[in-house]
Amino acid sequence: MATDLPTTQRRIVLRRRPEGLLAHDDVEEVEAPVPPLEDGEALLANEVLGIDASVRSWLSPAKGYLPPVEPGEGVRCSTVGRVVASRCPAYAVGDVVTTLGAWEEFTVIRDDLFSTWLSGPDPTYDTTAFLALCGSTGCTAYIGMLEVADVQEGETVVVSAAAGATGSVAAQLAKLRGARVIGITGSDEKCRWLLEELGLDGAINHRTEDVSARLKEMGARADVFFDNVGGPVLDAVLSRLALRARVVLCGAIATYNDTGKAPGPSNYLNLIQQRATMTGFLSLDDIPRFPEIGARLRAWEQEGRLRYHAEVFEGLGSSVDALNAMFTGANTGKIVIRLG
Amino acid sequence: MATDLPTTQRRIVLRRRPEGLLAHDDVEEVEAPVPPLEDGEALLANEVLGIDASVRSWLSPAKGYLPPVEPGEGVRCSTVGRVVASRCPAYAVGDVVTTLGAWEEFTVIRDDLFSTWLSGPDPTYDTTAFLALCGSTGCTAYIGMLEVADVQEGETVVVSAAAGATGSVAAQLAKLRGARVIGITGSDEKCRWLLEELGLDGAINHRTEDVSARLKEMGARADVFFDNVGGPVLDAVLSRLALRARVVLCGAIATYNDTGKAPGPSNYLNLIQQRATMTGFLSLDDIPRFPEIGARLRAWEQEGRLRYHAEVFEGLGSSVDALNAMFTGANTGKIVIRLG
Repeated sequence: MATDLPTTQRRIVLRRRPEGLLAHDDVEEVEAPVPPLEDGEALLANEVLGIDASVRSWLSPAKGYLPPVEPGEGVRCSTVGRVVASRCPAYAVGDVVTTLGAWEEFTVIRDDLFSTWLSGPDPTYDTTAFLALCGSTGCTAYIGMLEVADVQEGETVVVSAAAGATGSVAAQLAKLRGARVIGITGSDEKCRWLLEELGLDGAINHRTEDVSARLKEMGARADVFFDNVGGPVLDAVLSRLALRARVVLCGAIATYNDTGKAPGPSNYLNLIQQRATMTGFLSLDDIPRFPEIGARLRAWEQEGRLRYHAEVFEGLGSSVDALNAMFTGANTGKIVIRLG
Repeated sequence: MATDLPTTQRRIVLRRRPEGLLAHDDVEEVEAPVPPLEDGEALLANEVLGIDASVRSWLSPAKGYLPPVEPGEGVRCSTVGRVVASRCPAYAVGDVVTTLGAWEEFTVIRDDLFSTWLSGPDPTYDTTAFLALCGSTGCTAYIGMLEVADVQEGETVVVSAAAGATGSVAAQLAKLRGARVIGITGSDEKCRWLLEELGLDGAINHRTEDVSARLKEMGARADVFFDNVGGPVLDAVLSRLALRARVVLCGAIATYNDTGKAPGPSNYLNLIQQRATMTGFLSLDDIPRFPEIGARLRAWEQEGRLRYHAEVFEGLGSSVDALNAMFTGANTGKIVIRLG
């Protein structure tokens, strides 16, 4: 074990459940104890915290696939860091590990499903790239697009939140399979990024354009729709399904800040007309496969076939702004918080 | 060819598109010509007209899998009758044939996908039983339950409109496969019928009971939900899905009388939580297999393993009431109109 271990740390805890966007005074930065390690535990010094839509959903009271974060608890998120002390045979000091931690400087990890060893001591290991491309974000895109939707060459694919962390990877993976890919996003700048940087075949700004009408203009009916958004965007694409379309539900960011119940997609009956399928999935089920999938994504990135963009916020104090950037549509790609 | 063929007939035509339930003056009974047969045609004297939810949906302007019925045209429906004249090698005088006809005494048929030869001349052939069990109704139930949902022994199955023509067959087919089957219907009397006559394991009256709460009380989560109804019933069952549930969308009778757009199922996000699938199908795609499937259903009925109930209305003049009975929830089983 290393000496001079921290006994306290900075952590951001939930004070009360947010209504809508997370307000600065819904959370509180506190000094929290770092408990001494027990057998089987290691201490991870977090280097980057990953923001994704589920961070917000865990703050709502609804029971999901993980219990909601309770007031007084740290705000749950993925993190990547380096081991600073270990009483667990799976981890040595200096190892790079990703875990389901929180908005905090240190996380106690175990050798379980939620923590994955990434690398031995390697000062050049790019922890931001990992979160943006090879962690749960990229694996979710991979599983949803290549396995659940099983997109085929020549198919027409529509991706919502296409400039977001998951959507941008999903869209590129569909291109790699030889599909025609149309991305839906929330600004003209992001539309340009989709077309010019990611090489998509079409881009629609859902804030200024009629999604259904634009798809029609493009002569596009979706064989696959990879939906991160829900709400009116889902409804619009449901009106433009191809025969035997597969709608893959990855999330519904449009609804995560709602306190009441969001209306459902009134065009769902087109699933009958088009003999189509709408399937929900949680990449969580495939966590044991993340290292293998992540390695494949990393290889494609190194061959120049996959790109990512990370929006970096600095310091724990930027956490609330980082989370909200996700919902205001300000970001392109993955949002991460880099700790000092 | 037979002599003394009719040159005119009674037919009910659409005068204007209904709003909500079909009103008596939305249609008109007229005397219409029976055109002389051309080569390849035969004339069917309709004996029974079949009512199902699609009859109403075809009166709405929305383009579906068949074009909407236009004002001035006969009200489209399935019929079964006997051939009274033929210039088509596929049919002889006296043959029993089912077709996609209309609310009319005679239908001109051809040897195409929409007409199926059922039997040679046979005065005992039960045309009502055919419509109730072995025609498109029963085949839809068979394909939806046994093929699309592919229900397995021991699974929990929920069927909406379970006392209706399609639902009652679907529910019994799930029982035949060894599933636990809970039917949702609209009256206590129909609940009793489901339990006592069809032998279902549970029945819920959605007009007086909270569907979601009752399923919870029964400890039931749906592995399969066969939905004929849509609306609040669909939403309620979506809140009680088992892991990897299959929701099979057969129709949405709750919405067919709506003129505006019905709200979608706001609980659709449970498809993500439960890694579930919602699939639409149209049995129309399998019309060539209807004779084979119908024969299987007929055999099960004769072995006493499948039951049906037919609600018989007498005469063309009862057509409007027959159609509306379907939506007011007054009927059990299949609604047919018997012509004089």
